[in-house]
Amino acid sequence: MDWLNEPCASATEHYREFALQRQQQLTKPSGALGRLETLAVTLAALQGREDPRADRVHISIFAADHGVTEEGVSAFPQAVTGQMVHNFLNGGAAISVLARELGATLEIIDVGVKDPLNHAGLISQRAGAGTANSAQAPAMTHSQLNLALQAGYAAAERAYANKAHLFIGGEMGIGNTTAATALYCALLDVAPSVATGAGTGLDAAGIAHKVNVIQRILDVHRHHLNAPLEALRCVGGFEIAALVGAYWRAAQRGIPIVVDGFISTAAALVAVQQQPNVQQWLLLSHASAEPGHVLATDFLGLQPLLDLQMRLGEGSGAALAVPLLRMACALHNRMATFAEAAVAGETAARL
Amino acid sequence: MDWLNEPCASATEHYREFALQRQQQLTKPSGALGRLETLAVTLAALQGREDPRADRVHISIFAADHGVTEEGVSAFPQAVTGQMVHNFLNGGAAISVLARELGATLEIIDVGVKDPLNHAGLISQRAGAGTANSAQAPAMTHSQLNLALQAGYAAAERAYANKAHLFIGGEMGIGNTTAATALYCALLDVAPSVATGAGTGLDAAGIAHKVNVIQRILDVHRHHLNAPLEALRCVGGFEIAALVGAYWRAAQRGIPIVVDGFISTAAALVAVQQQPNVQQWLLLSHASAEPGHVLATDFLGLQPLLDLQMRLGEGSGAALAVPLLRMACALHNRMATFAEAAVAGETAARL
Repeated sequence: MDWLNEPCASATEHYREFALQRQQQLTKPSGALGRLETLAVTLAALQGREDPRADRVHISIFAADHGVTEEGVSAFPQAVTGQMVHNFLNGGAAISVLARELGATLEIIDVGVKDPLNHAGLISQRAGAGTANSAQAPAMTHSQLNLALQAGYAAAERAYANKAHLFIGGEMGIGNTTAATALYCALLDVAPSVATGAGTGLDAAGIAHKVNVIQRILDVHRHHLNAPLEALRCVGGFEIAALVGAYWRAAQRGIPIVVDGFISTAAALVAVQQQPNVQQWLLLSHASAEPGHVLATDFLGLQPLLDLQMRLGEGSGAALAVPLLRMACALHNRMATFAEAAVAGETAARL
Repeated sequence: MDWLNEPCASATEHYREFALQRQQQLTKPSGALGRLETLAVTLAALQGREDPRADRVHISIFAADHGVTEEGVSAFPQAVTGQMVHNFLNGGAAISVLARELGATLEIIDVGVKDPLNHAGLISQRAGAGTANSAQAPAMTHSQLNLALQAGYAAAERAYANKAHLFIGGEMGIGNTTAATALYCALLDVAPSVATGAGTGLDAAGIAHKVNVIQRILDVHRHHLNAPLEALRCVGGFEIAALVGAYWRAAQRGIPIVVDGFISTAAALVAVQQQPNVQQWLLLSHASAEPGHVLATDFLGLQPLLDLQMRLGEGSGAALAVPLLRMACALHNRMATFAEAAVAGETAARL
């Protein structure tokens, strides 16, 4: 795990300046493209190029099971994790459809679904047969945590080898809003009642029960919640740890990351609290419908591009933001300047 | 102008029901795709088909000049209208880039730029050589208003002939935030100080001056502002009138309309106040950075899909929403159902 000590890549300020200047010359009032201008400038600086790009998108979905489902915290049975992995691989899930629409690379990694899956298209890098029930014991051993982080590292390395312009991590794991919420509570020091939502569709009684379970999890591990990676080990999940590893490695490799929703943001929290330089590589795709999400995104200083009341996970929100990034790049790279188009600019108007 | 008396098309409730049922069967928790689900269901009902589509997009940009620019209400000189029309036609403007990215049909219609333009690609359907200065006289004569409405009608007819799945109207006209703001004030009964913004980039002094000009416009025409079409004639612009005609005819032809920003929404206000059934055909793409915009969208009961602090016009915000609509359709049409994917649904989980 020596790679954890490597520094994150840095944005190239020269290209940020160049991009800012170009935005001022394009045939539009200054600032009229709003956040699309900022996005193009940020991507130019992060990618270190004059023409920012969002064409090659690498999507890695990490799937794993959660022992805490024994506590009855999800509207769906645990078996759905594995069933949905098959659905991803067979092309029927939301992220499968979106990846095809985008022409993105989509890979599915089993980091610890309870029952091992057989499918030619699946990448198997298992840290265990689901986590332990974190209401009773640490979710992972130290070596399991390392295996899961390593699965994320490997995904970011594949994205790097594929010369990806953007990295998207997604997840599937029945019970993982419980694990993620426990991480939000531990790392942001908020109460479960504030951060807990319906997940895949709990009713009010279900949410109240989930709050109690999360409080028990926090109580059991109260002496292990100050260090982000240790909190991750005790209350997190294999797929969340894999996302941490993937984000961290993508930041080291200099690949801009489009963060998905509630679960992915928990991983971003862990990564940034452990290594603050990861933050500059993160773009937040959307505001999750899960109520605690904004607590973490405010902490991370990230503003969502979309707010469509989505709460699916799978990387689906991040995938939806890709066309906006592509449009931002296309506008930046292909619009005419005032000089090229012989259009009088604001300066001319004021002389 | 007999077509103005034709009824609007109606949504097909059978297809809405069918789409709602399908959304319940797709492999995701109920409601987890948020507004994408509503969009797909709405498009299915409006288009009257099982598989809603957003592939064929027809974008009509109407350009015209405004006599009120004599009052010094814009940061850009009037000549920019014609220069930007050339930029649209030569492919260098924001909407040109976005239309290419989307594979959309883009047509530019001169409804009254001050100096007639020569360009093989331009559709010329002029109502005049710019409007009169509405701070002194009605912006248009009755026959000019009809010509401009007719230009919009013709654009919607071309969209219909092209079997467009969506209609987008855009506009270019230096001075048109002044005309649009005057319409907001007249039709929503709000004060210019509440609804007036920076337009293409006025400073505080420029905005204060624009507020005064708009108040003068409203005073001059105060006996003509109760009827929407008469208000449009007195304080609007040719391109705004063309958008009114286009929206109205698209609603009659049953083509869902993606409304752009501040100017386009003024046209939507006129159309809906004159014929309330137009409203159901409107989808609002984005929240404009112009402060008055929300007053009109609240009145119209429209919620923006995007909020990217854009204030460009040209149909650019509407174009940016198209990928979201396409994704919503793809998910609706191509995701697997629980039964197809052999995934246990929520009902199963609760048995």
